[in-house]
Amino acid sequence: MATKLPSSEFSTRLDAIRGRLADTDADAAVWFDATSIEYLTGFHHIQTERPVVLAVTDDRVEITVPRLEVERVQENPRIDAVHHYFDYPGGDPIRTAAEMLSERDVQSVAADGDGAPGVMGYEGPKLSEFVDVETQSWVTRMRWEKTDAEVDLIRESAKWANLGHQYLADFTEVGAHPSTVSQRASLEASRAMLDTLGDRYAVRVRGGGPVHAGYISGRETALPHGHTPNERLSEGDVLVTGATANVDGYYSELERTMFVGEPSADDVHYFELMLEAQTIAIDALGPGVELSYVDDEVNDYFEEQGVLDLAQHHVGHNIGLGGHEPPYIDSGWGEHCTSEHTEMNESDATMAPGHVYTIEPGLYTEDAGYRHSDTVAVTETGTEMLTFFGRDLESNIIR
Amino acid sequence: MATKLPSSEFSTRLDAIRGRLADTDADAAVWFDATSIEYLTGFHHIQTERPVVLAVTDDRVEITVPRLEVERVQENPRIDAVHHYFDYPGGDPIRTAAEMLSERDVQSVAADGDGAPGVMGYEGPKLSEFVDVETQSWVTRMRWEKTDAEVDLIRESAKWANLGHQYLADFTEVGAHPSTVSQRASLEASRAMLDTLGDRYAVRVRGGGPVHAGYISGRETALPHGHTPNERLSEGDVLVTGATANVDGYYSELERTMFVGEPSADDVHYFELMLEAQTIAIDALGPGVELSYVDDEVNDYFEEQGVLDLAQHHVGHNIGLGGHEPPYIDSGWGEHCTSEHTEMNESDATMAPGHVYTIEPGLYTEDAGYRHSDTVAVTETGTEMLTFFGRDLESNIIR
Repeated sequence: MATKLPSSEFSTRLDAIRGRLADTDADAAVWFDATSIEYLTGFHHIQTERPVVLAVTDDRVEITVPRLEVERVQENPRIDAVHHYFDYPGGDPIRTAAEMLSERDVQSVAADGDGAPGVMGYEGPKLSEFVDVETQSWVTRMRWEKTDAEVDLIRESAKWANLGHQYLADFTEVGAHPSTVSQRASLEASRAMLDTLGDRYAVRVRGGGPVHAGYISGRETALPHGHTPNERLSEGDVLVTGATANVDGYYSELERTMFVGEPSADDVHYFELMLEAQTIAIDALGPGVELSYVDDEVNDYFEEQGVLDLAQHHVGHNIGLGGHEPPYIDSGWGEHCTSEHTEMNESDATMAPGHVYTIEPGLYTEDAGYRHSDTVAVTETGTEMLTFFGRDLESNIIR
Repeated sequence: MATKLPSSEFSTRLDAIRGRLADTDADAAVWFDATSIEYLTGFHHIQTERPVVLAVTDDRVEITVPRLEVERVQENPRIDAVHHYFDYPGGDPIRTAAEMLSERDVQSVAADGDGAPGVMGYEGPKLSEFVDVETQSWVTRMRWEKTDAEVDLIRESAKWANLGHQYLADFTEVGAHPSTVSQRASLEASRAMLDTLGDRYAVRVRGGGPVHAGYISGRETALPHGHTPNERLSEGDVLVTGATANVDGYYSELERTMFVGEPSADDVHYFELMLEAQTIAIDALGPGVELSYVDDEVNDYFEEQGVLDLAQHHVGHNIGLGGHEPPYIDSGWGEHCTSEHTEMNESDATMAPGHVYTIEPGLYTEDAGYRHSDTVAVTETGTEMLTFFGRDLESNIIR
């Protein structure tokens, strides 16, 4: 049971970064993005108005943090030195980071941005006021291909997401409140996960549980990003569910279109079209397949069935440490890869082993929405479905 | 009972924007930031890799959205025209927005950024490839001073946060699991809020409830941003709680240091120092008071008591649509206002009526953390405490 990322993963990642750094004229690589910093070091923090700055040189990993992160980051075996400012804006985050670089004789950096992002009201100087800066998006790109250890965590996430989802189905009945069913399913599945994993659970969540299961219902399902209404469930309601679990920072995605009692003829019609579209997409996935091809296949099917105007979004996206990550399964992906706005190229237009995709084509009428989402890993030879709640109509009718 | 922002607020906000726009050479004001767009129009969406672009001219409000947001935004009475692209990257968000501007003969804009932010992997062209762009942070600055209607929503939030917090205390006992207590308190308080407000509840949450209450416990409290451990509560555990509720997008913040059974002599010592520091800060607040003064007062007290080295962050921050908003109660705030990195000036260094602050000085030993947080509004004549759970030691011992 894989529930924590092995430490060796971080050495491999840092080695890869050092390989890329060696190909540049820069003395260090630098990151401001919290997820990238976590990816390289395992140090997890909430991105706020208080910048965190990671620097990797050929032989050192150093970091600048606000005072309130010092104790946590000091324990991190992959970080050689911790510098800190007290707080923002009284402390001076970028100057502190610049001093960290200066102490190591770093005069030029390859950074993920020229200064910290403007999160929660942060405003501050550019890093290029202190050192030469070229930008890179190495980690964003590295995250596309998950290692076996990363896929193991997403697979584990899918297990607990499935339990949360089963509880959603179990607790659903006419007259129940959708938000309360959602919260109860999250609570019970979180409890089961925590009790099962015990010490093997990687502590990652603040003031809640690691499993989140919930749904939107009724007319709100007609909106792909609808909300949970404050109304009791009725016979015939359509539900669009979602369940995931945080396993050492990694996520899976499981969504189902379900019915409270018997679906109408229209419901069955759109459900079956959506299900077939999802099957087409899942079957189309694989190493070497162009991402745009998978979206095109689904669009062709929808067009053939006369429902293309009911689609409102592309087929899916990569998933891992982030809930949405590139690449996206979108008809325009290939063109995007060779556009002037990215550092990508033609070879980035195809799926590769280690990519983990959500597959979630949807149809939306005026009355309801129909969308499943499954999490599927691309392997050396094909694919592996990581989520496993029944996709068929019968599995999704709650009687 | 104020539970939804009155529509008149949006007219006032748009009028204010048009006043500022008239003082520039720009033909339109433009926003990419989801919270700013919500502030001006009431259209709420999740910021993803799919950009949303709002344009305000002297007589029009137009928006560019991905296909999946069309139905929701079309219902918005404040938006005169909706343009859309299908999805990202197959659709062309910035070009669609540029066409929207071109149709209105807009040649120059004052925007909150030169293109959409790089959220969830978005990469795209700058807006300045299409029109002249100067940057502005008008909405960020406008959000500092809340109207009475906004403060009403934060006051309502504090009520439901308090119920969630009471449930946290009620459900806590030796042997209970902190994450389960947290989730149960969130569930029960959300249910009570939804049942009480009924139709007056502004539907805002997806797959959960509007109240979030939870805590971190034991040694994790020694970290200001600690996590909830997977271990049962023990006699003597320190808890650092947090509770809030989403009321039409607005948040309050309530945090308490609590004890499972009798606190130790050390616990009492640090608790009382923290409590006095919080009282000093609350008493120091008011219209015309320099923000840095409040942080300095607390630091002076900590220094006098010989515990300044146990402080890890400043006193607090503004709160509203965002959980953290500027200005920050920080000893360096005044200097920051006049620095070259902001558009602010000396007059921004002081508190004004309508600012709503969290007051949360903390002390952190090797074993535990001690921090309350209350939400306090600055009024014309003084302050109003919006949160109201007992701050004293006795109210925070769970026997």
